[in-house]
Amino acid sequence: MTGLPLSFVLLSLLLVIAAHGHATPKSKLPSLPSKIVQEIQSYQPIADQIIKYSLTGLGQNQSYDRLSVFTDKFGGRLSGTKNLEDSIDYMLDALQKDGLDNVHGEVVNVTHWERNTEYATLLEPRVKDIAISGLGSSVGTGADGITADVIVVRSFDDLDAHASDVSGKIVVFNQKYVSYPATAGYRVIGASKASKYGAVATLIRSVTPQSIYSPHTGIQDYVGNVKKIPTACITVEDAEFFDRIQSRGEPIRIKLYMGAVNYDMSLSRNTVAEIKGSVFPKQTVLVSGHLDSWDVGEGAMDDGGGAFISWQALSIIRSLGLKPKRTVRLVMWTDEEAGGVGSQQYYQKHRDEANNISILFESDEGVFTPYGMLFTGSPKAKAVMAQIGKLLQAVNSSEVYDNGGGTDVQWWRKDGVPTASIANHSEKYFWFHHSNGDTMTVLDPVEMNMCSAVWAVYAYVLADMDELLPRD
Amino acid sequence: MTGLPLSFVLLSLLLVIAAHGHATPKSKLPSLPSKIVQEIQSYQPIADQIIKYSLTGLGQNQSYDRLSVFTDKFGGRLSGTKNLEDSIDYMLDALQKDGLDNVHGEVVNVTHWERNTEYATLLEPRVKDIAISGLGSSVGTGADGITADVIVVRSFDDLDAHASDVSGKIVVFNQKYVSYPATAGYRVIGASKASKYGAVATLIRSVTPQSIYSPHTGIQDYVGNVKKIPTACITVEDAEFFDRIQSRGEPIRIKLYMGAVNYDMSLSRNTVAEIKGSVFPKQTVLVSGHLDSWDVGEGAMDDGGGAFISWQALSIIRSLGLKPKRTVRLVMWTDEEAGGVGSQQYYQKHRDEANNISILFESDEGVFTPYGMLFTGSPKAKAVMAQIGKLLQAVNSSEVYDNGGGTDVQWWRKDGVPTASIANHSEKYFWFHHSNGDTMTVLDPVEMNMCSAVWAVYAYVLADMDELLPRD
Repeated sequence: MTGLPLSFVLLSLLLVIAAHGHATPKSKLPSLPSKIVQEIQSYQPIADQIIKYSLTGLGQNQSYDRLSVFTDKFGGRLSGTKNLEDSIDYMLDALQKDGLDNVHGEVVNVTHWERNTEYATLLEPRVKDIAISGLGSSVGTGADGITADVIVVRSFDDLDAHASDVSGKIVVFNQKYVSYPATAGYRVIGASKASKYGAVATLIRSVTPQSIYSPHTGIQDYVGNVKKIPTACITVEDAEFFDRIQSRGEPIRIKLYMGAVNYDMSLSRNTVAEIKGSVFPKQTVLVSGHLDSWDVGEGAMDDGGGAFISWQALSIIRSLGLKPKRTVRLVMWTDEEAGGVGSQQYYQKHRDEANNISILFESDEGVFTPYGMLFTGSPKAKAVMAQIGKLLQAVNSSEVYDNGGGTDVQWWRKDGVPTASIANHSEKYFWFHHSNGDTMTVLDPVEMNMCSAVWAVYAYVLADMDELLPRD
Repeated sequence: MTGLPLSFVLLSLLLVIAAHGHATPKSKLPSLPSKIVQEIQSYQPIADQIIKYSLTGLGQNQSYDRLSVFTDKFGGRLSGTKNLEDSIDYMLDALQKDGLDNVHGEVVNVTHWERNTEYATLLEPRVKDIAISGLGSSVGTGADGITADVIVVRSFDDLDAHASDVSGKIVVFNQKYVSYPATAGYRVIGASKASKYGAVATLIRSVTPQSIYSPHTGIQDYVGNVKKIPTACITVEDAEFFDRIQSRGEPIRIKLYMGAVNYDMSLSRNTVAEIKGSVFPKQTVLVSGHLDSWDVGEGAMDDGGGAFISWQALSIIRSLGLKPKRTVRLVMWTDEEAGGVGSQQYYQKHRDEANNISILFESDEGVFTPYGMLFTGSPKAKAVMAQIGKLLQAVNSSEVYDNGGGTDVQWWRKDGVPTASIANHSEKYFWFHHSNGDTMTVLDPVEMNMCSAVWAVYAYVLADMDELLPRD
């Protein structure tokens, strides 16, 4: 996170609200000219062809199978590591072999943090191993670790109220899970808040609604000039355990060891491939997910699934011999997990293309059973999206809701470029997110077939329509 | 498990079917003499008093709070360990302080297995830590561990079909989860089956319908004269991962280290307390749960909850000054986890009391929201149980289903003694069972209040009625 302001991270987090919250109610849409309605309706045979290809044809289970091979080979793909770069090389080769155009990597500077050995041991009131997951960008403890008494707080207000008791202690945050965007702030700035009062380390309740003693990692940030103290997540179970012990007036003492190291920024690549537009090659529809992941788990759900249905969208269009007028561009982002590092540099480099981008799609909130599209753009554009949605009645994904797009496409919003993401049944997403539970076991080939079809139909139709998606 | 035949363990497992499966449909019950109906109806004010005391009175949250203090203090309580014996001393003291009668421990011989350090590392096709949970009674690997190629099988039939490929290998069982009793056999005898074909170790998919990369332990048994090979459970995720790798023809190689040791049988105690019967002190109603647990997790759900609502039943009766005609006896069993070792010896010692025991209650399948009672006994006895159930309409727990009682009270069935257990919403029980996820976080004080009330009403009414529960 070096060099990135905190607001950057928080903004990214808050943007996730829409996609993970309840889908917003549909607003009344302006009616479209009948010419456009008819134009979109004329794509029904192609949409049906895409759906058939993806659900029962040659594309059946292809995105799931490709992702299985990929995650089984590489596992977690942490930014800054050789493993991530090897996986990018693999992808560039795979995209080339899949017959896509203009396959290349675009170099970006990324964060490089490594976890190394880490553990915590409860020493009082009894000896017990405590599962932890060090947080991205956290400093290590030094070779001797940190042994200190613990104070448990339940909120930032609670921390402030006990400010004078914090110095020299390990602060445990036992905040309730409300929702990811409402709760993740404890993970992001908990260490900074506690450090201000002299804490020597923080252990933060994992940000999840369901635990089987499973710690979750994620990015954190040192705000301003606070002393950098080690910080990790613990399980929901242990946070509640410590809270109970403290409430009985018993002392709690923990030894924390974290071998975490922050290295200099290093080089990585956004992975790009295209289907070149047949009429307006400079105009694009961008579909995306991120290829990097945390080092725990396999990065199958977050965001292998999103990256691979995005590849699949292009793969389907190419396999069916479709030639859209505009270019369909796939970007598999790098270093999303530090707050959208790869996508931010992509934006900086490509910003002058803003007027030529019809829409940016991002899938980073699960590839479970889809039910529609989340969209950010003008009412007129939303009406076009809703009309395209009608092509997807066969996969029950016709609805269009507000607030689409996530961390990696957020940059383009201020330039007025429409963004979208898949509305899918991601209710269990945060059970596995950033944990060892993020594996292929979470994913389902049939659900990925459906997501791929939705992605491909929207991408193709928007790339082939006479006009760019309107912005007014 | 030394000395215990396998059939013993399997029988225990199969008996769990009833409680965890769908409750069986109600059969037509014989009608009761109106005298008995009226007798039972006359207990409605006392039942209401018990329910009020437990849900909103002085007993509110008491079983949950007592269990919190207990599990926070002792954590996992593995048979054969000093920690279990310390926790039994604590309980004897607590029961005494609670004013119960005849508080004592009854010595039994128990198994003594210890896990010690254990780990597995995938070496090929890539290096990865593999979470394991060694199985109770498994031998260790020796100081050098075992490094071997892996073969994955999906069933015992699949193992037999590949018998000639097994020698010298680590066998991974990737059996589907059907239900606990239908699937747990892989954990119990997987090592023996594979050892017969020359396997050097077994790694068995954890027996659970839901995983967040969570390995589950449990008892296993070496059948007959097979060579004893180390055996552990792995996660659902890794079992599926290995299966996929093998299906692609790639070699899998693992290093397994287990420091497990089987010690000689050692001494433990069943923990007993009573409310002495005012008229027929030698006649008893027995309520029970087990105090021992696995060393992983805290043994909060399995079976702290069952043991502590059983204590609570006596605690409520005593606190309300109720004087049942018969003795209500609490037994907190020891060494249930090796297949009911403590309860079997209790049966052998107390068998001559069979005709004086009205019923044995056992809670070992969760203390979630109750909805009735599971019962094994004659139709006439079931009719009595159903009539008592009507006293519990205020907590929606009036229904009586077939097949009650579990591992620890099964011994008494062949003598015709009725057995029962709580029908409760235990749908998530096996998510946490025998894993680090078995903590207080799983439990809910309100649910435990309701279970305690159900337990106390049945125990008190059956102990106070004019007649023992009929057996014909």
